[in-house]
Amino acid sequence: MAGNSFGTVFRFTSWGESHGPAIGCVVDGVPPRLSLAEPDIQHWLDRRKPGQSRFASQRRESDRVRILSGVLEGKTTGAPISLLIENEDVRSKDYAEIKDKFRPGHADYTYWKKYGIRDYRGGGRASARETAARVAAGAVARKILGDWVAIRGALVQVGPHRIDRARWDWAAVEDNPFWSPDRQAAQVWEGFLDEVRKRGSSAGAVIEVVASGVPPGLGEPVYDKLDADLARAIMSINAVKAVEIGAGFAAAELSGEENADEMRMEKGEVRFLSNNAGGILGGISSGQDIVLRFAVKPTSSILTPRRSVDIHGNEVEVSTKGRHDPCVGIRAVPVGEAMMAVVLADHLLRQRAQCG
Amino acid sequence: MAGNSFGTVFRFTSWGESHGPAIGCVVDGVPPRLSLAEPDIQHWLDRRKPGQSRFASQRRESDRVRILSGVLEGKTTGAPISLLIENEDVRSKDYAEIKDKFRPGHADYTYWKKYGIRDYRGGGRASARETAARVAAGAVARKILGDWVAIRGALVQVGPHRIDRARWDWAAVEDNPFWSPDRQAAQVWEGFLDEVRKRGSSAGAVIEVVASGVPPGLGEPVYDKLDADLARAIMSINAVKAVEIGAGFAAAELSGEENADEMRMEKGEVRFLSNNAGGILGGISSGQDIVLRFAVKPTSSILTPRRSVDIHGNEVEVSTKGRHDPCVGIRAVPVGEAMMAVVLADHLLRQRAQCG
Amino acid sequence: MAGNSFGTVFRFTSWGESHGPAIGCVVDGVPPRLSLAEPDIQHWLDRRKPGQSRFASQRRESDRVRILSGVLEGKTTGAPISLLIENEDVRSKDYAEIKDKFRPGHADYTYWKKYGIRDYRGGGRASARETAARVAAGAVARKILGDWVAIRGALVQVGPHRIDRARWDWAAVEDNPFWSPDRQAAQVWEGFLDEVRKRGSSAGAVIEVVASGVPPGLGEPVYDKLDADLARAIMSINAVKAVEIGAGFAAAELSGEENADEMRMEKGEVRFLSNNAGGILGGISSGQDIVLRFAVKPTSSILTPRRSVDIHGNEVEVSTKGRHDPCVGIRAVPVGEAMMAVVLADHLLRQRAQCG
Amino acid sequence: MAGNSFGTVFRFTSWGESHGPAIGCVVDGVPPRLSLAEPDIQHWLDRRKPGQSRFASQRRESDRVRILSGVLEGKTTGAPISLLIENEDVRSKDYAEIKDKFRPGHADYTYWKKYGIRDYRGGGRASARETAARVAAGAVARKILGDWVAIRGALVQVGPHRIDRARWDWAAVEDNPFWSPDRQAAQVWEGFLDEVRKRGSSAGAVIEVVASGVPPGLGEPVYDKLDADLARAIMSINAVKAVEIGAGFAAAELSGEENADEMRMEKGEVRFLSNNAGGILGGISSGQDIVLRFAVKPTSSILTPRRSVDIHGNEVEVSTKGRHDPCVGIRAVPVGEAMMAVVLADHLLRQRAQCG
Repeated sequence: MAGNSFGTVFRFTSWGESHGPAIGCVVDGVPPRLSLAEPDIQHWLDRRKPGQSRFASQRRESDRVRILSGVLEGKTTGAPISLLIENEDVRSKDYAEIKDKFRPGHADYTYWKKYGIRDYRGGGRASARETAARVAAGAVARKILGDWVAIRGALVQVGPHRIDRARWDWAAVEDNPFWSPDRQAAQVWEGFLDEVRKRGSSAGAVIEVVASGVPPGLGEPVYDKLDADLARAIMSINAVKAVEIGAGFAAAELSGEENADEMRMEKGEVRFLSNNAGGILGGISSGQDIVLRFAVKPTSSILTPRRSVDIHGNEVEVSTKGRHDPCVGIRAVPVGEAMMAVVLADHLLRQRAQCG
Repeated sequence: MAGNSFGTVFRFTSWGESHGPAIGCVVDGVPPRLSLAEPDIQHWLDRRKPGQSRFASQRRESDRVRILSGVLEGKTTGAPISLLIENEDVRSKDYAEIKDKFRPGHADYTYWKKYGIRDYRGGGRASARETAARVAAGAVARKILGDWVAIRGALVQVGPHRIDRARWDWAAVEDNPFWSPDRQAAQVWEGFLDEVRKRGSSAGAVIEVVASGVPPGLGEPVYDKLDADLARAIMSINAVKAVEIGAGFAAAELSGEENADEMRMEKGEVRFLSNNAGGILGGISSGQDIVLRFAVKPTSSILTPRRSVDIHGNEVEVSTKGRHDPCVGIRAVPVGEAMMAVVLADHLLRQRAQCG
Repeated sequence: MAGNSFGTVFRFTSWGESHGPAIGCVVDGVPPRLSLAEPDIQHWLDRRKPGQSRFASQRRESDRVRILSGVLEGKTTGAPISLLIENEDVRSKDYAEIKDKFRPGHADYTYWKKYGIRDYRGGGRASARETAARVAAGAVARKILGDWVAIRGALVQVGPHRIDRARWDWAAVEDNPFWSPDRQAAQVWEGFLDEVRKRGSSAGAVIEVVASGVPPGLGEPVYDKLDADLARAIMSINAVKAVEIGAGFAAAELSGEENADEMRMEKGEVRFLSNNAGGILGGISSGQDIVLRFAVKPTSSILTPRRSVDIHGNEVEVSTKGRHDPCVGIRAVPVGEAMMAVVLADHLLRQRAQCG
Repeated sequence: MAGNSFGTVFRFTSWGESHGPAIGCVVDGVPPRLSLAEPDIQHWLDRRKPGQSRFASQRRESDRVRILSGVLEGKTTGAPISLLIENEDVRSKDYAEIKDKFRPGHADYTYWKKYGIRDYRGGGRASARETAARVAAGAVARKILGDWVAIRGALVQVGPHRIDRARWDWAAVEDNPFWSPDRQAAQVWEGFLDEVRKRGSSAGAVIEVVASGVPPGLGEPVYDKLDADLARAIMSINAVKAVEIGAGFAAAELSGEENADEMRMEKGEVRFLSNNAGGILGGISSGQDIVLRFAVKPTSSILTPRRSVDIHGNEVEVSTKGRHDPCVGIRAVPVGEAMMAVVLADHLLRQRAQCG
């Protein structure tokens, strides 16, 4: 109810503030007898952690995860899995100056209006640091999905600069600091973001996540459709403002004939001739690739002063001195993948609950 | 779990198939002592019902709602409110031909893969008829929100044709069959859709919904953010493929300075100087207008034959003879408003649960 | 949240007041392709309905159930199943006199304090009539459990008169109006209840419900233990004041040696030598019979005047003139069976969700 | 779904095994701006912890709780509160002998059947150690209830020896190691339990918990009745086999006249003349004391060998060498209080959600 849990059968509950002693999550509903050890989770956390390039926050966190429960001799037991990550590089003094001020674009004002109290240290609960819990839970979800489901994300736009989809190469994603599938776009972004960073500004981005090998039948009509749950999962990530499935907004411009993904038989299997649906029909996976995209707004913490107010009703100017990502969308790639994983794992278990 | 309920404190559970004896929903968690009578609900259902113009399905349904419980002498009692709408104009013979065939773009194939059985009569549970339950629940939700919250929707794009936002006039919305806030665009759409309808095709659309007067503080970080729940609510509507809040996808192209909605004081109140956030920061309402847009794909039921397969694995061609909306996005306007209403009503009650 | 739904995967939501137009429930999460028709449900409703002997309320209800959705050609489709029972023998004038008075032992006072409004007609939502929805949902649950699980209930005490367990005969349960497994006890109860009825009083009872053939492994430690969910399910039935599993309260008097149900092997299967646990260990079914008992208080509606107050704060006397059960515990037998069925069906589906 | 969470608005999720590195819980839905510090929780944990008398397990645990999140400068922030207790006195070698054997009366067999894997170290998740998380969550719940609600528990029966209710003295509860409200009964129990302990056996007990000052109106009819949720909460505690509210099983023997709690006015307030209902009518609190009792079976870990089987299907004998409570019911007193607190706190918040 209070919003810190995600999922139904596979369900995780996260906790922790940016500048508290630790963050973590409890992952419940994990099937028993799956192999699971700390490196399985660490692998994915390492992809998300800050300080890895000049295009991400310079905060230094080893993000070392510990499994505190639910695993015996390398196997899940069916009991809840408690994961804990200590906060290390906490410099709360950076934030003293903005303790009473509402940073524009941040959640400062709304937390204050909602709770009447606000953990001002590094954004508290609203910090992007919370996404480490998502990635940790996503690592466990991938264990449930097994090897036949592949979830991959890529950055497809930074500021106004889009990739050329004709140059899409999944192999490229791993060899540039932007998870770009288009090596040329990565070079453009590098110049663009250096310029953005130098002038103390920030940029937005669009991320695409694709899941292959998802069995048909996942998703619960009519309110827990697979695309509805994915939209919620993705929109719940910090700074996300839009999400689309398959053709997305472009579907509005297609004719009924263009949009309908036709079907043929191929070696005894149904084959779709296109994928405008993004792998989901009527809220249920069709067996095609599940494809979604989402937009991340520019990081709200910028060096340029912006007009704002404080908790006493005074008009003030705010600029943020902390260590921030010039384009927080870059680090959203592994987070988007993780949310895809947790939704799919949950729906896989939900499907076998009702339909066996 | 099985996906037919929506909401947490304010929660409705819907049931019914397109061509069964009736459809309906049970609305639970409604505060006691609110005025509620059948006309309060009928008003909104009448806006959604088919057969009102040549641009909507010619199915004739009076969509007469009955309140079966939870109301005593014109007041809610706090008990669950059961709403029932009988199906009248059911012509199941229209569908006999496609009983065993999977219509491209429809949920036929995925329901079959998920459940191993499919109510082929008019789309069964996947029919747009289900949205009447949403509108009915939305009418109850509006009673909870009261008069200080106004929720209005408009069509802003049909096929490739967008409105000119400079001509936006809320008064226009009620005087054309498209809910267009731009009278000139309505004329363009009329010609476009006549042409689409005549050639047996269909068109997509984009809808914008705005809620004014929403108090700050609604939304539960971090996974039940207000925008996350809105995204789920909207994406769960039939045929929706994309949803965005505030600046949405365009936010990816803004700089941090442009995107940050600055704040000033005005008569002792905080005033925002722009609304790129769409009224939501950190997943919590800010008191600004909540603004969302969503894309509806073109109606999948078209007269033009498309290639498909049947349940026996044969390759077939399918064209749909039933009575269908050339642009189902038009009737999605009141549905989008209703989903905005149910999400806001739920979060209003959730907010007072935890925060008093 | 508002309390009108029960279950997790198998979940029903009920609605309706004693003297409204109808009552009903929506059963969601039912696996597809199960055989289901109205007589399957009617069979169990007929066991519960009033007017069948002089020891039950003389209200005449045919309790005819209609399936409005979720079933196609005799098979469940996986969609929600809406069940509706019309109220027929409604004599609201019986209740006019007590409209403003709080009947002692009834929920009148607490509904008034909770909601500030009360449906005074026949108890409204708090009427035992609501249990028809439980029995209807229980009938669907039995379809999920299949033929290998047998759920049977019996009355084991009426007022101070207990059965002799040495005379227990399941066959006897069907041939007396009390569901007594001890024919001699039934005769004692007949005389006792005639006397109770004649003096306008009422009596309490104890019911025992046994489920055989339940597979081991059902129940979710540690807060959704099978016995915890059964306790909730049973205690939620009108007028129930106590519930126990296996040895129950008597377990407090046993030694550790006596209480431990020892195990041996028999034809390759584990066999327990006793069943103090009532078939549940650590909150999980063991494969033994699940055994529970519950106490029903005497019907609160009695002819003898009792001291009370009214909604205006006046002291009054109240006696209830309507048609009531002298021992509502009798009709609680099929209700107790139904709640056992819904809990087991839900946990069967929950078990396969997490553990496959 | 997987059973490790309790509550709806006020909701805690617990994790941890008896012999893992730590146990803990995440408490979500706590209203903001309540005072909360570690000593507030430690106070209640100290009452539950083992090693405090010769009638409890000799395991030595300091049970030192740490607050890892959700509190800023001594106030709750509305964010989830993560509580962690390290396990200190872990002697897993005690259990090596029973690794493959199912201890009669324990959850060993059923965990094995459910999950196909079992954390055999000290009972794993099924250990009474888990109840520390309940007590910690209960301490937070008491902060929500505030000073006007008093929750007190007492032991009223040990083995066959009951207290004399005429001697009930709440002050006595704190000055004997049994939480007995009857000092003479405490002396009888001392002798009885010394004898039980010496012969390696164990004894059961009955606990009574009373909540005073609970406002009327808490509880959600019809399936989340306050008594239903209490029954679930209590029955979910390890080793509990029975629970009753108010007159409980004895209500079955009362007449309707005796059972009805009459009402009079006193100084403008409604006063009940008796409390057979245990403070709950129709599932809603009446403002009277809420009174419940529950039975705890004798500790299953005993020194006397019992017949059992092992995971390979061999017949074996089992006796348990570890450090165990001769009467685990004693330590169940603070646990029962805690579960009363969490249910009341949750329903207090639920009530204001729907009814304001």
